[in-house]
Amino acid sequence: MAKVKKQPRPKAETPRGFRDYFGADVTERKAMLDAIAQVYHRYGFDPLETSAVETVEALGKFLPDVDRPNEGVFAWQEEDDGAWLALRYDLTAPLARVAAQYRNDLAFPYRRYAMGPVWRNEKPGPGRFRQFYQCDADTVGAPNVAADAEICAMLADVLEAVGIPRGDYIVRVNNRKVLNGVMEVAGVLDPSDHSRFEAERGIVLRAIDKLDRLGPDGVRALLGEGRKDDSGDFTKGAGLSPEQAETVMGFMDAKRDTGAATVARLRELVAGSQIGSDGVDELETISDLLDAQGYGADRAVIDPSVVRGLGYYTGPVFEAELTFEITGEDGRRQQFGSVAGGGRYDDLVKRFTGQEVPATGVSIGVDRLLAALRATGRVGSSAAGPVVVTVMDRDRMADYQAMVGELRDAGIRAEVYLGNPKNFGNQLKYADRRQAPIAVIEGGDEKENGVVQLKDLVLGAKLAENASLEEWKSQPAQITCVRGDLVAEVRQMLDRH
Amino acid sequence: MAKVKKQPRPKAETPRGFRDYFGADVTERKAMLDAIAQVYHRYGFDPLETSAVETVEALGKFLPDVDRPNEGVFAWQEEDDGAWLALRYDLTAPLARVAAQYRNDLAFPYRRYAMGPVWRNEKPGPGRFRQFYQCDADTVGAPNVAADAEICAMLADVLEAVGIPRGDYIVRVNNRKVLNGVMEVAGVLDPSDHSRFEAERGIVLRAIDKLDRLGPDGVRALLGEGRKDDSGDFTKGAGLSPEQAETVMGFMDAKRDTGAATVARLRELVAGSQIGSDGVDELETISDLLDAQGYGADRAVIDPSVVRGLGYYTGPVFEAELTFEITGEDGRRQQFGSVAGGGRYDDLVKRFTGQEVPATGVSIGVDRLLAALRATGRVGSSAAGPVVVTVMDRDRMADYQAMVGELRDAGIRAEVYLGNPKNFGNQLKYADRRQAPIAVIEGGDEKENGVVQLKDLVLGAKLAENASLEEWKSQPAQITCVRGDLVAEVRQMLDRH
Repeated sequence: MAKVKKQPRPKAETPRGFRDYFGADVTERKAMLDAIAQVYHRYGFDPLETSAVETVEALGKFLPDVDRPNEGVFAWQEEDDGAWLALRYDLTAPLARVAAQYRNDLAFPYRRYAMGPVWRNEKPGPGRFRQFYQCDADTVGAPNVAADAEICAMLADVLEAVGIPRGDYIVRVNNRKVLNGVMEVAGVLDPSDHSRFEAERGIVLRAIDKLDRLGPDGVRALLGEGRKDDSGDFTKGAGLSPEQAETVMGFMDAKRDTGAATVARLRELVAGSQIGSDGVDELETISDLLDAQGYGADRAVIDPSVVRGLGYYTGPVFEAELTFEITGEDGRRQQFGSVAGGGRYDDLVKRFTGQEVPATGVSIGVDRLLAALRATGRVGSSAAGPVVVTVMDRDRMADYQAMVGELRDAGIRAEVYLGNPKNFGNQLKYADRRQAPIAVIEGGDEKENGVVQLKDLVLGAKLAENASLEEWKSQPAQITCVRGDLVAEVRQMLDRH
Repeated sequence: MAKVKKQPRPKAETPRGFRDYFGADVTERKAMLDAIAQVYHRYGFDPLETSAVETVEALGKFLPDVDRPNEGVFAWQEEDDGAWLALRYDLTAPLARVAAQYRNDLAFPYRRYAMGPVWRNEKPGPGRFRQFYQCDADTVGAPNVAADAEICAMLADVLEAVGIPRGDYIVRVNNRKVLNGVMEVAGVLDPSDHSRFEAERGIVLRAIDKLDRLGPDGVRALLGEGRKDDSGDFTKGAGLSPEQAETVMGFMDAKRDTGAATVARLRELVAGSQIGSDGVDELETISDLLDAQGYGADRAVIDPSVVRGLGYYTGPVFEAELTFEITGEDGRRQQFGSVAGGGRYDDLVKRFTGQEVPATGVSIGVDRLLAALRATGRVGSSAAGPVVVTVMDRDRMADYQAMVGELRDAGIRAEVYLGNPKNFGNQLKYADRRQAPIAVIEGGDEKENGVVQLKDLVLGAKLAENASLEEWKSQPAQITCVRGDLVAEVRQMLDRH
């Protein structure tokens, strides 16, 4: 007879790079997303919820010469027809598919928002997860930069709606076309033949994208001959002359005290370039539209030093930064930094239909924004645990259930202890771990006298920390009240917290 | 040189068996889930959000003798260590993993709720999707049936919270232990040796699970010698004598007018069986606890005819049914039927830890409940489209943006038309497709005179349908108002709808 091998027990583990969210982690994020959705809704954006799964073909990650899709996505093959499916890696690719698939059914310009998890098949690391939330709003089919201005205004409203006060954030706007104009002036873009200097422009784009990390001198080196890093490795430069490089550097440094002055400076820089001039016009229009709606320089500014995403987007680029300081991991004070970014991209559905459809949108870094709210104490302080009704006499469960019933009917979060009631200490320990604000106690004596005991666990914890004997006596953390007053007394105690 | 083959355009298609949700589809479901979560929260349940991805090992779907995991889940292999990962197929398996993984960190009894999509790798069909929502609440670590009673009460509260009036639903409760007692009395369960009659009990369980489909006679046949179906196929029966079969049939038929009478009838049926007596005691306790909290027979009843899930659960079993009638696909009136089910299962974490941990919970059929709310007109009637400000003069975009800004500041959903404004008819068509209640128009003349036109699209549609000439004249669907009164006039028009 074959030997029956005993199966080992499975490991109870979250897969590598994934995590579980408990209690307040879930509700705080949800509250933030709800507040954001409300703003999106008010702006006329409609929700779209696509499924987590797309065909790899639609995601555009399929490499024709390997039998497995590109790394970076979680993919698998259908058993019947061998088609490859994958989890979405962002919310833009599904939007592109939807805009193409329903192009005859949707009302364009199509304003849509989407919120939900996305998946990346990457090596997990500290703080790097393989599933995380995105929260996007995009307008598809609106060529006018009024759509971009609208997204910027909405972004400002979103930040205030979730609790970032005016003055603690700024929306910065730049434009890829202005950079193209600068490159034209610098001699690395030929409007009549875009294939010339393509390699150089690639190096320029990558160089300015590294401004934060390398500083102006590092970028200048990459624009010129090249740069040797600390390890001795040499990165080839774009080969620009010092004068050409200064033109490009001047772009990133063009911000002036007022929007008008910045626009004037940019006009100088792109003088002679049609695309550069178009880009400056767009920035001016966006600035005017924002001003007209009351989004002044305290909320949104033209800032050519915004370089992130310039390589990806085709027109306006925007970024929302939180300007207040927090203490970094190295103990130094530093600005919180970017929490959202976006811009205009005009090739959204072209892959599917061949038609160019203009689109602009923004993606909010859900985890970063939530971290900012937590860092400044704007979420997470309230103990949301339930009132715990303890069980002194297991035969009177109906009495205790009636109590929680009354409390819940009054809108108060409450629960009866459902574990083994034998050890009363365990019940109080449980209430503690549940962050219960109050424990309700009704033993035989109390029952007989028509009263219950209310233990104020919040006050108790405070007293235990630093109270004198007098304070202990003057502020009783446990009171006796008439059974009929249970709801009123609990509410009073909760209001004191 | 190698020939560069032009890639064909990708198809813009949702993968087979998946679907996209637009606008109201998303917001209506969200509103329902929010209302449910509020009830769960009030009962002390905490949200848990696990990732969509689990190890196949933790899901328990791995077959040791094939190199691919069991069908039914979407699974793939990690590239580095070859571990199998999969999308969760329900919310209970992740709960089991979490309860085991965090057994030293969670406060038990652990009340948790979870809402979110789950995935099944099944053949898609009409109305059968491979991704759908589940909405569960479970209590882990509470052996007392007070936990089951709580779930039943909560289920009733949930149904009322989403808009099902009392009287239109009923929560039915049964108990697997009573069935076990009945089987003991019928002679197919030997309490001292559970391995005896295992095959017979399996047949009995499968037979009663088919009560709805086969009717009493069909079940009776399967309890006895067996049954030949319409196609001529023979299904072997459990081999019970007519008397034994009647005992089992009597169980499903034991419901009486009052809970007390039902309990008394069940006691007769299980006389002599310890487990049967325990089961009846549990039902009586649940009934008493629900009564004590005011959940009378109009909301929750003991009903031994609830057989769904008796094979899976180990103690109390419950089901929520909507009792109002709808017109079925065949044109006949029929009860809406079940929208939620659950029960007690005591082997939740045993797979992982070897320890038995009692658990009880409920799963709400999100799509079915939403369908019920739609069928009865409780969601979906309100047109939630934005006020659309049209663009008569593309150079005055700032004016139009200022209008939507004012409307939004007043909490009114509004948007400016962002498509090509040349054709005004297209703008009104757009407003129509957006289900806009009002279109705002400000041309050059209006601007000069300091007024705007408000077109009441809701009234316009009504009039277009069935108005006389007099009505057309007496109820103007378009009015002129002073620019400064825009917000007030729009609000008044919206209030009329």
